[in-house]
Amino acid sequence: MLSFLMEEGSIIRPQDAAHSTCSSVRSPKASGGTYMGLLTPRMEQRPIPEPGPNEVLLQMHSVGICGSDVHYWQNGRIGDFVVKKPMVLGHEAAGRVVKVGSAVKNLKEGDRVAVEPGVPREMDEFFKSGNYNLSPTIFFCATPPDDGNLCRFYKHSANFCYKLPDNVTYEEGALIEPLSVGIHACRRAGVTLGSSVLICGAGPIGLVCLLVAKAMGASQVVISDLSADRLVMAKELGADFPLTVKRGDGPEELAKRVEGMLGAQPHITIECTGVESSVQTAIYATRPGGVVVLVGLGAAMTTIPLLNAALREVDIRGVFRYCNTWPMAIAMLASKKVNVAPLVTHRFPLEQAVQAFETTRQGQGVKIMLKCDKTDQNP
Amino acid sequence: MLSFLMEEGSIIRPQDAAHSTCSSVRSPKASGGTYMGLLTPRMEQRPIPEPGPNEVLLQMHSVGICGSDVHYWQNGRIGDFVVKKPMVLGHEAAGRVVKVGSAVKNLKEGDRVAVEPGVPREMDEFFKSGNYNLSPTIFFCATPPDDGNLCRFYKHSANFCYKLPDNVTYEEGALIEPLSVGIHACRRAGVTLGSSVLICGAGPIGLVCLLVAKAMGASQVVISDLSADRLVMAKELGADFPLTVKRGDGPEELAKRVEGMLGAQPHITIECTGVESSVQTAIYATRPGGVVVLVGLGAAMTTIPLLNAALREVDIRGVFRYCNTWPMAIAMLASKKVNVAPLVTHRFPLEQAVQAFETTRQGQGVKIMLKCDKTDQNP
Amino acid sequence: MLSFLMEEGSIIRPQDAAHSTCSSVRSPKASGGTYMGLLTPRMEQRPIPEPGPNEVLLQMHSVGICGSDVHYWQNGRIGDFVVKKPMVLGHEAAGRVVKVGSAVKNLKEGDRVAVEPGVPREMDEFFKSGNYNLSPTIFFCATPPDDGNLCRFYKHSANFCYKLPDNVTYEEGALIEPLSVGIHACRRAGVTLGSSVLICGAGPIGLVCLLVAKAMGASQVVISDLSADRLVMAKELGADFPLTVKRGDGPEELAKRVEGMLGAQPHITIECTGVESSVQTAIYATRPGGVVVLVGLGAAMTTIPLLNAALREVDIRGVFRYCNTWPMAIAMLASKKVNVAPLVTHRFPLEQAVQAFETTRQGQGVKIMLKCDKTDQNP
Amino acid sequence: MLSFLMEEGSIIRPQDAAHSTCSSVRSPKASGGTYMGLLTPRMEQRPIPEPGPNEVLLQMHSVGICGSDVHYWQNGRIGDFVVKKPMVLGHEAAGRVVKVGSAVKNLKEGDRVAVEPGVPREMDEFFKSGNYNLSPTIFFCATPPDDGNLCRFYKHSANFCYKLPDNVTYEEGALIEPLSVGIHACRRAGVTLGSSVLICGAGPIGLVCLLVAKAMGASQVVISDLSADRLVMAKELGADFPLTVKRGDGPEELAKRVEGMLGAQPHITIECTGVESSVQTAIYATRPGGVVVLVGLGAAMTTIPLLNAALREVDIRGVFRYCNTWPMAIAMLASKKVNVAPLVTHRFPLEQAVQAFETTRQGQGVKIMLKCDKTDQNP
Repeated sequence: MLSFLMEEGSIIRPQDAAHSTCSSVRSPKASGGTYMGLLTPRMEQRPIPEPGPNEVLLQMHSVGICGSDVHYWQNGRIGDFVVKKPMVLGHEAAGRVVKVGSAVKNLKEGDRVAVEPGVPREMDEFFKSGNYNLSPTIFFCATPPDDGNLCRFYKHSANFCYKLPDNVTYEEGALIEPLSVGIHACRRAGVTLGSSVLICGAGPIGLVCLLVAKAMGASQVVISDLSADRLVMAKELGADFPLTVKRGDGPEELAKRVEGMLGAQPHITIECTGVESSVQTAIYATRPGGVVVLVGLGAAMTTIPLLNAALREVDIRGVFRYCNTWPMAIAMLASKKVNVAPLVTHRFPLEQAVQAFETTRQGQGVKIMLKCDKTDQNP
Repeated sequence: MLSFLMEEGSIIRPQDAAHSTCSSVRSPKASGGTYMGLLTPRMEQRPIPEPGPNEVLLQMHSVGICGSDVHYWQNGRIGDFVVKKPMVLGHEAAGRVVKVGSAVKNLKEGDRVAVEPGVPREMDEFFKSGNYNLSPTIFFCATPPDDGNLCRFYKHSANFCYKLPDNVTYEEGALIEPLSVGIHACRRAGVTLGSSVLICGAGPIGLVCLLVAKAMGASQVVISDLSADRLVMAKELGADFPLTVKRGDGPEELAKRVEGMLGAQPHITIECTGVESSVQTAIYATRPGGVVVLVGLGAAMTTIPLLNAALREVDIRGVFRYCNTWPMAIAMLASKKVNVAPLVTHRFPLEQAVQAFETTRQGQGVKIMLKCDKTDQNP
Repeated sequence: MLSFLMEEGSIIRPQDAAHSTCSSVRSPKASGGTYMGLLTPRMEQRPIPEPGPNEVLLQMHSVGICGSDVHYWQNGRIGDFVVKKPMVLGHEAAGRVVKVGSAVKNLKEGDRVAVEPGVPREMDEFFKSGNYNLSPTIFFCATPPDDGNLCRFYKHSANFCYKLPDNVTYEEGALIEPLSVGIHACRRAGVTLGSSVLICGAGPIGLVCLLVAKAMGASQVVISDLSADRLVMAKELGADFPLTVKRGDGPEELAKRVEGMLGAQPHITIECTGVESSVQTAIYATRPGGVVVLVGLGAAMTTIPLLNAALREVDIRGVFRYCNTWPMAIAMLASKKVNVAPLVTHRFPLEQAVQAFETTRQGQGVKIMLKCDKTDQNP
Repeated sequence: MLSFLMEEGSIIRPQDAAHSTCSSVRSPKASGGTYMGLLTPRMEQRPIPEPGPNEVLLQMHSVGICGSDVHYWQNGRIGDFVVKKPMVLGHEAAGRVVKVGSAVKNLKEGDRVAVEPGVPREMDEFFKSGNYNLSPTIFFCATPPDDGNLCRFYKHSANFCYKLPDNVTYEEGALIEPLSVGIHACRRAGVTLGSSVLICGAGPIGLVCLLVAKAMGASQVVISDLSADRLVMAKELGADFPLTVKRGDGPEELAKRVEGMLGAQPHITIECTGVESSVQTAIYATRPGGVVVLVGLGAAMTTIPLLNAALREVDIRGVFRYCNTWPMAIAMLASKKVNVAPLVTHRFPLEQAVQAFETTRQGQGVKIMLKCDKTDQNP
């Protein structure tokens, strides 16, 4: 099948074979292991994999590009995860079951499914207690060294493929992955009926947090961004108060502005930028007894008003991916409680993966979809 | 002020004095203390009360009639609460501040407020830990021997009057009381994003539970009732699956029908009828690890499939009124996340309280409002 | 290996082969499927099993007899679980790893382990969310049709065998199973620092609930039983107030006595008898906002003061086995926070399993251990 | 009554009048409002106060010296709380009721009581929801401008005085205050059966956290300190692993040492020093999905490995005083589950308050008690 690789000096050859894969490789120069430079994408032919007893083979339909995909391409690593060999990208995916492993009971050929990219490898304490996202040995699509699913055919654990109802599209299925980040963040935050929420950052993740917070009953949401354009979309998706931020705005002053907008400090702040000053704003802004959830990833060390948080019992909670979100996300999409369709602003056929990545890198649009099924490029 | 009393043999005299009060008295025959017969409603003139230092005097605007008001009228008691002397009814109320006690800081003359009818009298363990609804010495409007607010003027603790935003009407303010039952029930049930919910009973309380469950993120709601008419309203308010029940339907069979509708057992069942067979249905219907919340009040002793609940870890949780619901309810109403206006199907001026009670007793409509302010009968 | 079967008309033959198994079979008369009569125990030779890739083979050391083992013997069924073919009993077990499956990483030959008898078969919603005990397809030792481990050699999922520290004996390891019931019950009850607790029933399960409640910080524990002898043991194990109950004692009166002993109603009641009047006592006795946990199993339908529970928001929560308890139980045993050793009052070699079961059936002692390793009959 | 004031240039006059008060005043030099220098303690005669309707007058018996008392003395402020006028210190107190306000029901003359120093002034959202410690207008003993109770006679809200059982001494009653910090910290941390815990700092607060963690079921506790002497006491009080820390030890290396001691990362870390490097250690040390509780107060801005915490979902939770702890603390003391008596290492009569403060400032002993009742200087 056609594959899409990232390698220094390679030539982009969007061939049209069985199926293609978008992958990243660490630059040859990076043999020392700490190199963080640009990877080169390219297409490659790979054999169609054979599903194991508990796996299904999927014909991929729609795969969204995530900021982390671009980050690996541009930097070759995220934290301790370093791309050391060619890696297929992609982990926001939906497809159709074309082959079923011998022990699979929950799926059958022809089922349309959304793919949960994290599959725990061990039955450790985290998995047993329902927090399998924290399992240190988990398989995760497109986190080195595990390949993703930006290709024509892909095999995955049947237990982590979820059948889509007829009224949920493949693209909505693929969007369950970013939506899951929003669900997990809002769940960790304890968003509930009447919550007032500040969301820092109106990128794709900020927007899904907005959608989910509203669906969980948030009464008022302030959402902030440097870009006024992004806030237009946020307003369309239900934000009550868009807040345009300028570089250099003081965290305490921004916190005051948020309080002014809402008439009180928000119960919850969901920080989606990872920027130090924004984390500071998040803490200052949040009501005593409230919660700051960290979704955006910043530098290893961060300077924050920890005393302020501690004395007001403002909890600081991180979010690492998600767990147990696909079923509730499907329930929400099927019941039309959440409308994620407007998030998709661009579509490219898999063969144009390089262009799609470049578009994402430039920050155009919100969510860019790669269409992996040549016979069906519909949503 | 004009008052509305319930007393055997009294004559209904809807006079038009300063203000009127709707009250219930135990029938003279009931001197033994265990009598449960019909009370007689009547109007009475009472002096306008003077607010204490921490109280406000309200000119009542809209007061809804609750099933419990009718129950006291018809039975003279609810459980251990027995009407032993004339009692003013009414506890779903909103009005305007006309006088402010000397120590009151949170309100001023002219403020439009919703009234939380329960005011803890003691700073006991329940109050200190945030469950003041469980405080055994709590004052509660129209629960004997405490008078309610179905009258022209009424004084109340300023701490339990909540200012209404301009875009929330008095009637919406009065409806916060039944809405609070729904909020507390759904909160105790743990309704969250993607929850599937069965609500037994489509009366006013079933309907507010429906509205709240949807606002908290429930994806699918089955609602059952004997009356097809009530289910029409439920459908209009957002129920996904109306389920018409017939007397004699077997609880286990009904549970199967619910499972069939949803494709799986509901996570949560909110029982709003108090009928034994319905409680049984609630238990059988609920998914392992789920929750049954009891809102409807039944007989003292109930026969239920407790083993079935225990072995499947289906929790059974009661609901006694509510606590800490007014602020979030106001937030929801102000942000238009919940629309309670359609619940009001009838309106009567206070002078016609008897007719209003009779209409409620006959089960007509959903929520009947008494308009206590002669100069403003608007919603 | 020597096996211990239950079959009508069989002769007890305590042979001494490779290893023996204690099993129950439904009486031949019970072919209709609803028979509930006495099974006959017998010994049988069975081949030593071969562990699969993720399994370990254990040489069993100590296996406790549970009330459910005796119940299957005497009744042939518990609820919907019916013994339809010969079944090996035993699920409170510890042993030594003698063979390791090819994919096992967490254990090695020679490790001393405690066996968690429930092993989920499917990665369903219950397992993924950390409640694998509720998984409907779970394998469970000595619950029909799954064989238990009352035998010489036994294979089990390596993920559900937990290595014992050197300072924890095999018998303590076997006692983790009943201890887990206590842990799960106290965890579901929310026992914490300063909790006052009523435990109904001072049998083995009541006693482990007592031990765990105390270890979790309960300040005062009332424990009730019909038998004064059992209460002596309860007192020795830390109960503050033994309460001797007589048949016919009124539930409300008993509740008053409990309140009198504690000076207030207990926060939590753990019901370990399954007797209807005791469940009623549990509800009446518990403080508003408190919790009743149902550990004892009673009849299918139970008549209880549900209104009393609902109006006081006393939650009723069942307990089905346990999940995620072995690691914390081992931590407690290793740190000597809980002393379960006194619970073992009788020991029998496996060959005398019939006598051991008969002793258990007669209600003698607390916990009876079968010693399955001929070369080591130590605790 | 004799009073103990802090004022520049004042002469210590330990007179023996009705009763004495230990108070701090901001130095005259500090008129600018930002001065943080040394206050001068002195004794002063003050009139015995008259209790209001809901208050009781207490003859103080035992008052412990807290680090914050010394901090105010040495620095004139803690965060935004600045001593601007003479202030009576002391908030770890127990005494005897000598006069009862007209509306008081829960206490009578002669009752021995422990004093909860925080009394909410307003029925705000924090109070109503059970988190009255977060109420911004709360009265709090010896937090400027509110006077404390280091004096002969003191009046306090009867609702926040708790009757001591006969088997709990006054000093144990006074120690409920620091014990409450431990309870609130361990409760916020979620310490439960089998928890492994790291406590950073073995001062008085570290030690009460240790006692409480053990009482709540912690299986293993590592406690760290610069002082080997303090760790001796910690070991005597039940710490499993004392860890001597040296200035300059790397946080990541210390975290590794903790993991080595426990065999795994602790579930919970309770940081009691406020030192930046110790907060860093706390984060690195804690297990994924675990909790860091901040009890120690540090600088306004702190640099921490926030990314590490976020990606491993290690929650960071502050602690501001406590709420709803006295009843459970009394239950624990009465049942002898917690032994706080060894914490008291020094006693001084109130007249020697200056010497007592000086002893505390020098870091001698653990807890220093001032004995305010001249007729009874017993524990």
